[in-house]
Amino acid sequence: MVKLGPLKLKAQLFCDGVNAMGPGKADLLEAIEREGSISGAGRAMGMSYRRTWLLVDAMNRCWHERLVETIAGGGHERGARVTPFGREVLAGYRALERHLAHAAEEETRRLTALMRDTPLPPPGRSMEHAA
Amino acid sequence: MVKLGPLKLKAQLFCDGVNAMGPGKADLLEAIEREGSISGAGRAMGMSYRRTWLLVDAMNRCWHERLVETIAGGGHERGARVTPFGREVLAGYRALERHLAHAAEEETRRLTALMRDTPLPPPGRSMEHAA
Repeated sequence: MVKLGPLKLKAQLFCDGVNAMGPGKADLLEAIEREGSISGAGRAMGMSYRRTWLLVDAMNRCWHERLVETIAGGGHERGARVTPFGREVLAGYRALERHLAHAAEEETRRLTALMRDTPLPPPGRSMEHAA
Repeated sequence: MVKLGPLKLKAQLFCDGVNAMGPGKADLLEAIEREGSISGAGRAMGMSYRRTWLLVDAMNRCWHERLVETIAGGGHERGARVTPFGREVLAGYRALERHLAHAAEEETRRLTALMRDTPLPPPGRSMEHAA
């Protein structure tokens, strides 16, 4: 999700109906790089291990190579890292986001000029205050 | 929501935290133009009258002028139409969507080249089949 003043932009890439890359998955890849494990990344993002693992698995099945590889050991995950291929996909997605934000600037400025700074209060609010 | 092959793009404009324009609201404005009433537009989009009315009300409170005006009569809504100002906002939003889709083309092509046509099956699937 890219924020540009009042504009929010969300770009998602689908592989035959499966979400292959989007704001959450890109953040997850960055968290795995930082934390060095799937469990650590999930904790840092407030997600269950199961959900985190499912997101990683979906990513790994959608691209020509794995984006994340795990180091198994003794039946437990001993760590994970983003592959060079994963870093390439991540960089391409972040470039797409930056490019979209830049492309949206002029039309966002034009639309924002037509928008109030704050919405009018919902109907009934003024009557409640008067009552 | 703009679709461009495997890419889905969603642009939303917020007025101090209130969603002022996005894919659903733009579709709703077009449905009101077509159907000539809020109730008809809601029916066409499979939404309750209450939900449809709340979306219209939020839009009308976020911009410098109303986007939709209703023709009241005998305690009932007799019809609704998109104001010239509403058509201006709608056209600006659709132009933003088109512009974003165009801007995304090259990076989407580059990322799509790294993506499979179909995801690999989830783990366990092949074992199930073998069992």
